[in-house]
Amino acid sequence: MEAIAKYAHYLETELQKLDFPATPGNLYDPLRYFMTLGGKRIRPMLTLLGAELFGTAGEKAIHAALSVEIFHNFSLIHDDIMDEAPLRRKQPTVHTRWNNNVAILSGDVLLVKAYQEICKQATEVLPELMQVFNQTAVEVCEGQQHDMDFEKESTVSIPAYIEMIRLKTSVLLGCALQMGAIVAGASTADQQLIYEFGQHIGIAFQIQDDILDLYADPEKFGKQVGGDVIANKKTLLLLKAFEMADEQQSAKLNHLLTVQNTTEKIIGVRTIFDEIGVQAAARKIMDKHTALAMEALAAIDVHEEKKQPLLELSDFLLVREF
Amino acid sequence: MEAIAKYAHYLETELQKLDFPATPGNLYDPLRYFMTLGGKRIRPMLTLLGAELFGTAGEKAIHAALSVEIFHNFSLIHDDIMDEAPLRRKQPTVHTRWNNNVAILSGDVLLVKAYQEICKQATEVLPELMQVFNQTAVEVCEGQQHDMDFEKESTVSIPAYIEMIRLKTSVLLGCALQMGAIVAGASTADQQLIYEFGQHIGIAFQIQDDILDLYADPEKFGKQVGGDVIANKKTLLLLKAFEMADEQQSAKLNHLLTVQNTTEKIIGVRTIFDEIGVQAAARKIMDKHTALAMEALAAIDVHEEKKQPLLELSDFLLVREF
Repeated sequence: MEAIAKYAHYLETELQKLDFPATPGNLYDPLRYFMTLGGKRIRPMLTLLGAELFGTAGEKAIHAALSVEIFHNFSLIHDDIMDEAPLRRKQPTVHTRWNNNVAILSGDVLLVKAYQEICKQATEVLPELMQVFNQTAVEVCEGQQHDMDFEKESTVSIPAYIEMIRLKTSVLLGCALQMGAIVAGASTADQQLIYEFGQHIGIAFQIQDDILDLYADPEKFGKQVGGDVIANKKTLLLLKAFEMADEQQSAKLNHLLTVQNTTEKIIGVRTIFDEIGVQAAARKIMDKHTALAMEALAAIDVHEEKKQPLLELSDFLLVREF
Repeated sequence: MEAIAKYAHYLETELQKLDFPATPGNLYDPLRYFMTLGGKRIRPMLTLLGAELFGTAGEKAIHAALSVEIFHNFSLIHDDIMDEAPLRRKQPTVHTRWNNNVAILSGDVLLVKAYQEICKQATEVLPELMQVFNQTAVEVCEGQQHDMDFEKESTVSIPAYIEMIRLKTSVLLGCALQMGAIVAGASTADQQLIYEFGQHIGIAFQIQDDILDLYADPEKFGKQVGGDVIANKKTLLLLKAFEMADEQQSAKLNHLLTVQNTTEKIIGVRTIFDEIGVQAAARKIMDKHTALAMEALAAIDVHEEKKQPLLELSDFLLVREF
């Protein structure tokens, strides 16, 4: 974990240096606030490791890395408005602490700041960086739209759900890695492979997130266990349960969606999920994407030792006990 | 007006060709709707004329031109949410026809589309284009924030007001022209001059807009005369009036701000404005910026004939009778 620890410290230092003007305060104060709320900084780490993988010091890709982290924060600020989320990283969201207008506009300017960071990389790689960044930014918006649409739909297929999480969260991990690879001058084929690696790790991570909601060890889990169940969220678990359930189980599940008592609801849903074998089914899909990620990484023709930090990072992301 | 008429037709054709994916419909339908609501398309026209001025066919700058128009529409969609505006170009705004979330997210993806258009210009000019575009995008957000802040402030100075309209609306005209000049390979000095021309025309136009609200010929004016007065909007006229008023006039004006009867209010405000000489004072500031624009254009060392379309366009923008 040496490379990772070194870069984690470096990233925090560089993020601290991000400089927002003093005025207008209502535009920039929220950004100073939000950008320092913390977070795992996984995405910019991937950019640095993506450069490192192809033989270039991560530091050379710092602006690409920061642009990815800035973009991620932009999308969180706007998503929080749309999802009416009161908290982010246990602190008030921007639209809660200020108001919706402030959150819209400071989000907008943050997106532009992401582009300003990209432009600080060498001009020769700018067109390539812009290409993957723009494509990804569009996809992230599409993913968020699908997610909001799904809430109103009565049924969502598993492939549609996987596609939604791919767009909403996973492509940005692929993009982060690819931008590092671009700075390092990697071939188009290698860029594609490292992008695939990131994208599949992202999908696996998101599925794990769905599983952990109900099956995490409450002592180790940062959030309330069963939060998705209480909110009737269409997670992979719930979609898979309806797909696999017999008539009687379906009826029971549909009834449970209307139950108000949260303990009764969580225990009831978990009992049916266990009966059906939902956790194992979700794990199977998760494992498939982990395997696809590893396959892509294996196909990259660099010294195996070079891949170590990325393998460590995926272990860290994907092997939370459950 | 030959060049302008030709380009106006060309721009509409190119705007029609903008291609948004079919799905997700809630993301892209609003963009298809909003981008075809019309508008004068002044900004992309400026980009084409900016290229033409420096000896390059406007068509070569079409993607830069489209990016400016797309950006403008993005900012309108988000501003309309913030300003709670029900109508734009006499049609329902995006957040009214759909909802706030749709307007936020489709606005976001539209901003990314603006960047995608820029990237279609030649890679050699991309860094320069991005530089002015990013800077301008940040400033437009700052201008919108100042505008919203001003609504809550008891007094706003004239210089602060001019700076607000410069940021919110005028820098984008400068940017539009400069992007055309960049595509045409103009020198940095010439780029700066054509930017100044656009910026000052923009400020003059915005001041004219404030004046027309109260002094336009109702038969020729598209909007309700006195709309800003009814809304107690801090226009240049009102700020200038308070600056020039004696104690008695100030008291009268303050009283008029509380009057509910719109006819009484408009006539009352207009009477005091006339007494104080507010229109002439505002005209003076407008004329100063028109002169600064002409000075910048005059300093550009190209054949005078080449400047003709830009002069015609400013005449069109600035000589509405009042």
